[in-house]
Amino acid sequence: MKMFNKSYAIGKLSKNQYGLISSMLRWLSSNSTNLATSLNVAERRKTPILLVEDNHQKGVRYLRLNCPKNRNALSKEMIDALNYSIVDLLNDASEQHLKAEDSFKWLRALIISSNVEDFFSSGHDLKELATNSDREFRREIFMDLGKFLMNLQQLSVPVICQIDGLATAAGCQLAVSGDLILATKKTRFSTPGSNFGLFCFNPSIALYRRTNFNLTAFLTLTGQSITAQEAFQNGMINSVSETTEELHDCTETILDSIRMKSKSVVAIGKQFLYKQAAITNLSLAYSEGSDMMVNNLAMSDGQEGLDAFKEKRKPIWSHKLS
Amino acid sequence: MKMFNKSYAIGKLSKNQYGLISSMLRWLSSNSTNLATSLNVAERRKTPILLVEDNHQKGVRYLRLNCPKNRNALSKEMIDALNYSIVDLLNDASEQHLKAEDSFKWLRALIISSNVEDFFSSGHDLKELATNSDREFRREIFMDLGKFLMNLQQLSVPVICQIDGLATAAGCQLAVSGDLILATKKTRFSTPGSNFGLFCFNPSIALYRRTNFNLTAFLTLTGQSITAQEAFQNGMINSVSETTEELHDCTETILDSIRMKSKSVVAIGKQFLYKQAAITNLSLAYSEGSDMMVNNLAMSDGQEGLDAFKEKRKPIWSHKLS
Amino acid sequence: MKMFNKSYAIGKLSKNQYGLISSMLRWLSSNSTNLATSLNVAERRKTPILLVEDNHQKGVRYLRLNCPKNRNALSKEMIDALNYSIVDLLNDASEQHLKAEDSFKWLRALIISSNVEDFFSSGHDLKELATNSDREFRREIFMDLGKFLMNLQQLSVPVICQIDGLATAAGCQLAVSGDLILATKKTRFSTPGSNFGLFCFNPSIALYRRTNFNLTAFLTLTGQSITAQEAFQNGMINSVSETTEELHDCTETILDSIRMKSKSVVAIGKQFLYKQAAITNLSLAYSEGSDMMVNNLAMSDGQEGLDAFKEKRKPIWSHKLS
Repeated sequence: MKMFNKSYAIGKLSKNQYGLISSMLRWLSSNSTNLATSLNVAERRKTPILLVEDNHQKGVRYLRLNCPKNRNALSKEMIDALNYSIVDLLNDASEQHLKAEDSFKWLRALIISSNVEDFFSSGHDLKELATNSDREFRREIFMDLGKFLMNLQQLSVPVICQIDGLATAAGCQLAVSGDLILATKKTRFSTPGSNFGLFCFNPSIALYRRTNFNLTAFLTLTGQSITAQEAFQNGMINSVSETTEELHDCTETILDSIRMKSKSVVAIGKQFLYKQAAITNLSLAYSEGSDMMVNNLAMSDGQEGLDAFKEKRKPIWSHKLS
Repeated sequence: MKMFNKSYAIGKLSKNQYGLISSMLRWLSSNSTNLATSLNVAERRKTPILLVEDNHQKGVRYLRLNCPKNRNALSKEMIDALNYSIVDLLNDASEQHLKAEDSFKWLRALIISSNVEDFFSSGHDLKELATNSDREFRREIFMDLGKFLMNLQQLSVPVICQIDGLATAAGCQLAVSGDLILATKKTRFSTPGSNFGLFCFNPSIALYRRTNFNLTAFLTLTGQSITAQEAFQNGMINSVSETTEELHDCTETILDSIRMKSKSVVAIGKQFLYKQAAITNLSLAYSEGSDMMVNNLAMSDGQEGLDAFKEKRKPIWSHKLS
Repeated sequence: MKMFNKSYAIGKLSKNQYGLISSMLRWLSSNSTNLATSLNVAERRKTPILLVEDNHQKGVRYLRLNCPKNRNALSKEMIDALNYSIVDLLNDASEQHLKAEDSFKWLRALIISSNVEDFFSSGHDLKELATNSDREFRREIFMDLGKFLMNLQQLSVPVICQIDGLATAAGCQLAVSGDLILATKKTRFSTPGSNFGLFCFNPSIALYRRTNFNLTAFLTLTGQSITAQEAFQNGMINSVSETTEELHDCTETILDSIRMKSKSVVAIGKQFLYKQAAITNLSLAYSEGSDMMVNNLAMSDGQEGLDAFKEKRKPIWSHKLS
C-alpha cells in the first residue's frame, strides 16, 4: 500500500510562486484532484520547512514541522505552509462535499508533530517580527496562525497534536489547539513571551480554552515552564507517554478507535463538541443535541449502526452524511 | 422509624395506566399527599425497573435503576419512570411550597444509584431506537432524559449520584448530572456511541459542564473508557472510594453534612450554584450574590444561625424560606 | 535600600477620622504623593488589623491580615482597610498614569498574606453581621469585598495570594481571587457558611472561576474542608509548598520572573487574561489578541525586546506603555 502515500513540502515561495500556488490551489480544490501529488511535483525541496505526508493506509495526513535552524519557529513562511497544507481538506468538512463522491474518504485524522528532535515549536519568529515593523504584516502573521488553528476545528477529521519536546509561546498555542493532544515525558510547555517584551496574548486564549485560569495566568505572567505531567494534571493535554515509542503506540490506539467509526458520524460529532461549548444555556444545548441525535439516527450510518447492534454483527459504514 | 419508609416502583405502563398515573400525579401534586405511598399501592411489581424508596429516617429518596436484562438501559420506560419519580418533589423547589407546610420537610437528598451489580447504566436503549424510526418518538426520548437531568438541578435538595460500575453513553451523562458525584475504584466511564453509529451528542454536553474540553473530546471522539481515578483527576467526579462499602460511608458523611444544615439555605444555595455559573460578568455575579446573602441573612434560619453563633450553641433550624 | 520601605496600618477609624482619611486619599491620589508615608504618620497603631508594607527593593507591596482575635475576619473595618490599601495603586493601572511619570514604577507585585499563625482568614465577621441587621449595611459589606477583589484584577501588577493556614468562607473567596495563588501543605480551604445559616454565595462565584463545578458544589453544599493538595489537583491554586520557608522561596522565584519583565507588558497582559476569559467566540478573541500583540510590539519595550533578542543581549526596559 506504500505507493498510495503522497508527500510534498512547502518551502520559501517567491511572490510569483505564491500566485502560482494560489491559483493551483483554487483549481485543484474545484477539481477535487489530489493536491498533495501536484505539490509533490511542483515543490519538492531539499530542506522543506513543513513535511506533508498523506498515508492512505493509515488514513492520516501528517504535518511535520521541519525547520531545525530556528526550532520550528512559526515564521510567515511556516504559517503559510500550515494554512496551505489543509486548504484541500477544508472543503471536505462541508456537507456538500461529504455528500458527494469524496476524494478524502481515506482520510480519518490529521496529525501535527515535529521532525526536529527535542523541539515542537519555538513560536513566532521574533527575528522576522523585528525586521518587519509594518503593523499589517505583523497582524497578518498573528491572524493567519489563528485562522489555521480555527480551521483545524472546522476539519471533518480529528486533529491530533503529538508533542515530543519543547513547545514555547505560539508553539504552545499550536500544541494545545488540536482536538486531542498527546505528549511525552520530556515535553515542556511555556509561554515566556513577556521575557522578550511581547506578552503571549494569543497563546493565553488557546490555553484558557483547554486548561484552568490559574495555570494560564502562571504560564503567561511568570514565563516559567511546566512539565507534560503538570499540563496533564491540569487537563491541558490528553496523555503523557514515557517515551517517543510509547507516544506512537498511544497514537495508533487512538487512530484505531477513530478508524473503526463512521467518518461522517465523527465529523458531525467533532463539530458539535465546539458548538455546545459555546452554549451557556443547558436547555438550549440539550435541544440542539437532541436534534443532532435524531438526525444522526436518520443517516445511513446511524441506521447501519442500529442494524448491526440488533444483528450482533460488525457495522459496515458508508461514511456518508446522508 | 422504619415504618416511615415508603417504596414503590414503576414498571411497564399500558396507555390506560399511563393516563391513570398522569391524572393521579396531577391530583396528588395539587393535594400534597404522599405520592410514594399511593404509587406503592397502585404499582408494585415483581420486577420494577426503577426502585424508589423514601427513607424518612435518613432524609433520602433513593432511585435505584433495576433493569439487569439490558444493564439499566435508559429506555423510554426507564426515562418515564425517572421523570415520574421526582414529579412530586418539583413543587417542593418552588418558593410557595417551601413557605407553606411542607410534605417533604423530611427530604434532604436524592440519591441515584444502580441495583444491578457492576453496572450503573448502559445509556439509551438502542434496540428500542432501532425498532421505532419515528423522529418525534426518538427526539422525545432524548429530550425527556434532558428534562429529567435539568429537573435534578431544580430540586431543592442536593442530588447525589453513586456510581459503582460501568456508566456508558447516556448512562455516563446521567452519572455526571448530579450535584455531587461519588464513584468506586471499579467504576469506568465511556461514551462510545459513535462505535454504534450514534455520536454521544447529549452526553458531551453533560461532560463538558463537569470536566475539561480535552477529556470530553477524548471520551466522545475515541469511545475509549477511563477509570474513576482518571475522571476524578479531571474534576469529573467528586470522589473515588476503594470499595462499595467505602462509597456508602462517604455518602453517609456527606448526608450528615447536609442534614446538619437548614434545608431552605441549602435550597437557595444549590439554585445559585447553577445560576452564577451562567453569569460571565463578575460584577453582575457579585451583585446577585450579595443580594442573595442579604436575603439569606433576613430569613429566620439566617437569623437563627447568627444567634446560635453569638450564643455559642447549636442552631435549631425552621427550614423555612421566610 | 531599607530606608525606602514604607509601612502603615489602618485600624479602627472614627467617623471623623474616616472623613479625614477619605479627603486625604482624594488629595494624595490627585497629587501622586506617597500615600503610604502619609498614612504611616497619621495612622500608626499598636495593633493594626492590616499591615501594609511597601518594599521598594523587592518591588512589592505586602498586605498582611493581622487580626488574631477573630482569625482575620473580614469585618467592615478589615474590608475598608483592604480597599484603602490599594486606592493609590488603582490610578497606576490607568494608561494615563503609566504613560506619565510613575510614582509606583518600583511596584511589581502585590502580595496578600496573613500575619496570624495557622490562619489566613475566617471570612465575614458573623458577630458584626448579627449586631447590624440593616440590609444596606450588610449588602455594603458583601459588595465592598467584591469591589476589592475586582479591583485586584484592575491593578497593573500581578497579585499573589500566599495562603499558609485555614482559609474559610469569604476568607477562601479572598484566597482564590489573586492572579497567582500559592499555598502550603498545612493550608485547608472550606466554605462552611451554610453550617451557620448563611450559604457561601459570593465565595462560590470566586471558586467557580478558578476550579471546576464539582469541587465548587462539594465545598459549598457540604461545608467540608479540603487540603491544599486537593485544591491544587483541581486547579484551584498554583502551588503547594511543604513549609512556610518553601512558600517564601516559591514566591521569590515568581517575583524574580516578574521583575525581569517590562512592567507595562505585564500590565497589558494581565488585563487581557481576564478580558479573553469573558470572550466565548474564538475568532473574536484572536482578533482582539492579535490587536494587542501588534500594539505590544509597537511599544518601546516591545521594540527593545526584539532588539535585545536580535543583538543577543539582556533587554533594558523603559516600563512605559507608549
